[in-house]
Amino acid sequence: MKTRAAVAFEAKRPLEIVEVDLEGPRAGEVLIEIKATGICHTDAYTLDGLDSEGIFPSILGHEGAGVVVEVGPGVTSLEVGDHVIPLYTPECRQCKSCLSRKTNLCTSIRATQGKGLMPDGTSRFSYKGQAIAHYMGCSTFSNYTVLPEIAVAKIRKDAPFDKACYIGCGVTTGVGAVVNTAKVEPGANCVVFGLGGIGLNVIQGLKMVGADMIVGVDINDTKEEWGRRFGMTHFVNPKNVSDVVAHLVEMTGGGADYTFDCTGNTVVMRQALEACHRGWGESVVIGVAEAGKEIATRPFQLVTGRVWRGSAFGGARGRTDTPKIVDWYMDGKIEIDPMITHTLPLERINEAFDLMHAGESIRSVVVF
Amino acid sequence: MKTRAAVAFEAKRPLEIVEVDLEGPRAGEVLIEIKATGICHTDAYTLDGLDSEGIFPSILGHEGAGVVVEVGPGVTSLEVGDHVIPLYTPECRQCKSCLSRKTNLCTSIRATQGKGLMPDGTSRFSYKGQAIAHYMGCSTFSNYTVLPEIAVAKIRKDAPFDKACYIGCGVTTGVGAVVNTAKVEPGANCVVFGLGGIGLNVIQGLKMVGADMIVGVDINDTKEEWGRRFGMTHFVNPKNVSDVVAHLVEMTGGGADYTFDCTGNTVVMRQALEACHRGWGESVVIGVAEAGKEIATRPFQLVTGRVWRGSAFGGARGRTDTPKIVDWYMDGKIEIDPMITHTLPLERINEAFDLMHAGESIRSVVVF
Repeated sequence: MKTRAAVAFEAKRPLEIVEVDLEGPRAGEVLIEIKATGICHTDAYTLDGLDSEGIFPSILGHEGAGVVVEVGPGVTSLEVGDHVIPLYTPECRQCKSCLSRKTNLCTSIRATQGKGLMPDGTSRFSYKGQAIAHYMGCSTFSNYTVLPEIAVAKIRKDAPFDKACYIGCGVTTGVGAVVNTAKVEPGANCVVFGLGGIGLNVIQGLKMVGADMIVGVDINDTKEEWGRRFGMTHFVNPKNVSDVVAHLVEMTGGGADYTFDCTGNTVVMRQALEACHRGWGESVVIGVAEAGKEIATRPFQLVTGRVWRGSAFGGARGRTDTPKIVDWYMDGKIEIDPMITHTLPLERINEAFDLMHAGESIRSVVVF
Repeated sequence: MKTRAAVAFEAKRPLEIVEVDLEGPRAGEVLIEIKATGICHTDAYTLDGLDSEGIFPSILGHEGAGVVVEVGPGVTSLEVGDHVIPLYTPECRQCKSCLSRKTNLCTSIRATQGKGLMPDGTSRFSYKGQAIAHYMGCSTFSNYTVLPEIAVAKIRKDAPFDKACYIGCGVTTGVGAVVNTAKVEPGANCVVFGLGGIGLNVIQGLKMVGADMIVGVDINDTKEEWGRRFGMTHFVNPKNVSDVVAHLVEMTGGGADYTFDCTGNTVVMRQALEACHRGWGESVVIGVAEAGKEIATRPFQLVTGRVWRGSAFGGARGRTDTPKIVDWYMDGKIEIDPMITHTLPLERINEAFDLMHAGESIRSVVVF
C-alpha cells in the first residue's frame, strides 16, 4: 500500500512529505493507522545528526496514537479497530529482562530495532524501490506504520488521539520516573531540573503522588509559570544564586529526598545528585546527554548514602503500564491538554521542529 | 585515672605507648575497658596523613570490643559488666536520620565527633596536661576509653573479644553491604572487587544470603585462595584479561546483579558499575577513595538501568544490627577466626601497621 509520510532523507535536512510504499504486517505484526504524533527532542537529536547511530533515510517519530487496521498471522492480543499507542520500549513478557521483574527494558527485539528494521531483519517501508529505515521501532511520522504486536499498547477508545499520543513518550517518561523509578512517597521533598516537556510531567507526577516540596530549577524565568501550573511549589533560577546545590540543600532542610535531571546536561546531573539528602536522597537521570559526555562526582557522595540511578520510558512496562497512564489522564489525575501548545497538520511538521528549537512549544502534535 | 594507650602524636610517625590521663564518664557516657582492637586501613589512612581532617595528637582505633566498667549519670541502656562494641556510627534513635528509617548514618553527634571531641565539646584524654583528641568517637587503641551511650552496642557475653572486635568495623562493613545496602537475594550473580579484609566479608555475606556466582577480582593471585576459603566461586585477575568489564559481563551472562568495590580506587569503581547487568544491576561503593578523586561514567549506564550507591558501616544501625552480626558469628553463619591472621600485644601495635602495609595480614588484632 501507499502512505503519506514525513521522510528524513538525510541528517540536518528538513523532513519531506512524500508517498512511500508500505508492506502489510507479517506474522506477529500489526498495521496501524497513526492519527496523531508528538514531536520529541529525540527525533530532533537524530535529525540533527547528533546520534552517531542514526540511520538515513528513515521515517522518524515515536510518540503516536492510532487504530489497528490489519493484523498479521498469529497475532492474538490485538484486533482490527483497537486504539493503540506504539511502543519504542516493547514488552514481550518472555525475555530475561521482562521476566526479571526489575526492569522495563525488554530486550527481545533490541538488536533489529537499533538497526531500523523489523524483528525479521527487514524494513516494511520503501521509496522508489529503496528501503527506508524504521525509527525506534515506531515511525509515527507515517500515516500508516507496521509494528510487532509486542510493541503495541492497547488503550481505551474514548481517549483523544491528539492528546494520548503524548503518553507514548513524554508523559510516561516524566510521570513514570516518579511512580516507577523513584517510587516517590507522599511528603517527599523533590527537585526537578529542567522545566520542559519532561520536567513538567515529572512535576505533575510528584503532585499526583503527594510530594510536599516540588522545587523546579530552570535558567529560563518564563518556565516558572509553567511549573506552577502543574504543581511546582518553589522555583529556582540558578543564575540568581551563587551556589545552586548549597541553595537547594538549604531550601529542602538538608537536601532533597528525590531529584530528577530533565536537562541532559551532565553538569546539571551532578548538581542533581549532590542536592540530595545525605543518607537517602536519590537522583534520577532522565535527560539524554550529548555523545561522549560523562557524569562525575566524589564517591563520598555515594558512601554517605546518596543513590544515582536513571530512568528510560519512565520505567514503564509498555503494554502493562501505558494504558494505566491513559486512565489517569482520562480520570483527571494528570493533565495533558495545556502542554500541547501547538497542533499542526503533517504538511507543517518542520514548523514543529522549529518551534521546539526556539523553545516556543512545550509539545507540538501533528495530526493526520 | 591513668590508662595505657598508643598515641598518634604526629602524622607519619609510629604510635607511642604511653600512660595518658582519662577523665571518667560524664552524663550519658560510659567508661569501657577495651579488651581487643583491630587495626583497619582507616587508622593507617589517618596516621599516614592522608586524611585532610586528621587531628593530632589523638588516640586512633575504631574496631574494638570490651566491657563497661562505669556508667555516667542518666545512662539507662547499659550497666557495669556489659560486653560491648564501640560504634563510630552511633544510633541515637531520635535524630532525623535515625527516624527516617532510610539510613544508618545517625547525625546526632557528628559535629563533635568529627572534631575529635565528646558530644559536650571536650576531650576526656590528656597527656602531660595537653588534650588528646578522640578518634572516630572510639579511640580503641587505649586500654580504657569513654563513649556516649548512643555509640555503644551491647553484645552477648560468650563472644570472644579478640574476634568480636572485628565486627566493630570490617565484618559489619562487608557483610552489611550485602545484607542491608544491596539487599542481595538468593540466586544473584555478584562480583567483588578487592579481596582484602572488607572484600572477604562481602564474599561471606554473599555466601550467607545464597548468591549463585560470587566472582572475586584482585590483581594479586594469592588472594584467590583466600576468596575461595570464604565462598568465592570464580576468580579474575584483571592483569590476565584484556578488558575486565567485558570479561565479567560475559562471565555473568550479561552483567552482575550486584557488584561491590572494596578497593577505594575510583577507576575500579567505574568498572564495578559498568560490569552490572543492564536494566537492574546495582553497584555498591564501599572503599574510601583518595581525597580529591572522582568517579565518572557515561549517564547512559544509569539511564539503561544500572544503579550506583554506596555503603558506610554496611548500612548497619550500630546498636540494633551489630549484636545480630555477633549472633551470626556465634551461630557459625559467618566466620571471623581465619581472617584474624595476627594477634599482638599493645606494645607491638606498630608491627600491625607494617603487616597491613606489606599486605601480609588480613586482619591484625591487638589485645590488652
